Amino acid sequence: MLTLGLDTTAGTACAAILSDDKLLCEYTMHSGNTHSTTLLPMIENMLALLGKKASDIDLYACAAGPGSFTGVRIGAATVKGMAYPYNTPCVPVSTLEALAYNLVGYGGLLCPVMNARRQQVYTALFSSDGMHLRRLCADCAMAVEDLASLLKDTGEPVYFVGDGYDLVTHLTDRVTPERLRYPSAVSVALCGYWIYANAENKAVYAPEALLPVYLRKPQAQREREARLEQEKRENERNIL
Amino acid sequence: MLTLGLDTTAGTACAAILSDDKLLCEYTMHSGNTHSTTLLPMIENMLALLGKKASDIDLYACAAGPGSFTGVRIGAATVKGMAYPYNTPCVPVSTLEALAYNLVGYGGLLCPVMNARRQQVYTALFSSDGMHLRRLCADCAMAVEDLASLLKDTGEPVYFVGDGYDLVTHLTDRVTPERLRYPSAVSVALCGYWIYANAENKAVYAPEALLPVYLRKPQAQREREARLEQEKRENERNIL
Repeated sequence: MLTLGLDTTAGTACAAILSDDKLLCEYTMHSGNTHSTTLLPMIENMLALLGKKASDIDLYACAAGPGSFTGVRIGAATVKGMAYPYNTPCVPVSTLEALAYNLVGYGGLLCPVMNARRQQVYTALFSSDGMHLRRLCADCAMAVEDLASLLKDTGEPVYFVGDGYDLVTHLTDRVTPERLRYPSAVSVALCGYWIYANAENKAVYAPEALLPVYLRKPQAQREREARLEQEKRENERNIL
Repeated sequence: MLTLGLDTTAGTACAAILSDDKLLCEYTMHSGNTHSTTLLPMIENMLALLGKKASDIDLYACAAGPGSFTGVRIGAATVKGMAYPYNTPCVPVSTLEALAYNLVGYGGLLCPVMNARRQQVYTALFSSDGMHLRRLCADCAMAVEDLASLLKDTGEPVYFVGDGYDLVTHLTDRVTPERLRYPSAVSVALCGYWIYANAENKAVYAPEALLPVYLRKPQAQREREARLEQEKRENERNIL
């Protein structure tokens, strides 16, 4: 069974192909270029070197969010576009869960953090028995100072991972090697592979069912709602 | 400063490009195909997507052995060929040291093991303070049972890494996540980058000075020497 996993939710574009749960190849680009110009050429090159075609892929695993709005859309659109012609199943994977999976061998608390701007992070908490993850809370958006309160007095070592790393390093004495802080398409593909393998109802993973997961509304929408709210209040004042 | 690192010493072909000590891109192929047919297309594709040329590379880091005789030669020949036209410096990196660097965040003993056939491994020992490696012994070839004696009663957790992993899992209760057991060109590139940055005499890294490092003679040569030795003994007997 051939699984293609990818993650474009933050500054890194990455794709990986597994044969069952074994790595065949992995390609990671952290160049600052637009994911929409690099992702498909990366996938095309991987398939060519493996002597495979898109129709050989049995499963797609997509980091479906949280993350940058455009980045999340590029990943989901790419997977849906590739999967649709052959009705190949698509599994959405939490970007945060895949990040935590990078550290699956580490003891202690695994805390993925993605920079959500304005001193906020997308985060969640996991522990690891060395081979598997245990989720301790749902994905959420949180102020860095609230995360600090949450992690205070845990009594366990905390390992951070993700592009919010530099925002939170003062909250732990543990260092995560730089290579593991980046999103890994291998982690996404493995998480997706296991979700699909263990799913009782596999029909929910039809390509058309794959949706991006946003934990916050886009900034433009938040600003529009705030503006409408203010106009409404001013109108009410004028009427009174 | 642009560094290209690569490792073809075992079953994995991988290449990575760093800007100073930061990852730009990484490509890993574990397909069973010959490295000589995949490595240069991988590097060509990475450079194209980054908008770079071979002449932009400032430093090469090559996993120079131990490893498979053909694999080690493919890596060294590729690097020498690319480096020669611009006289770009080439740093040989111990394959085992780069493997240990995959686990640089782990506490305890880091023990890279490469399958050297006939129940032997290429191995070495390192410890880690979370960011750097400390080498505890030189690279060597060793029977698995001798490694077992060496690691007995260390009192420290032991983490294995490398394609000899399955030969030694019975010697530890610690699990290394599968993704980290593979050679990583990022680790090779980072090791090479730091070796070069800290070198007082950088002239020793001229392309023509790069040599493969073999810890044992090739099997054909060992068999020939054994045959010659036997013939010599038989001749001596005949003379007597």
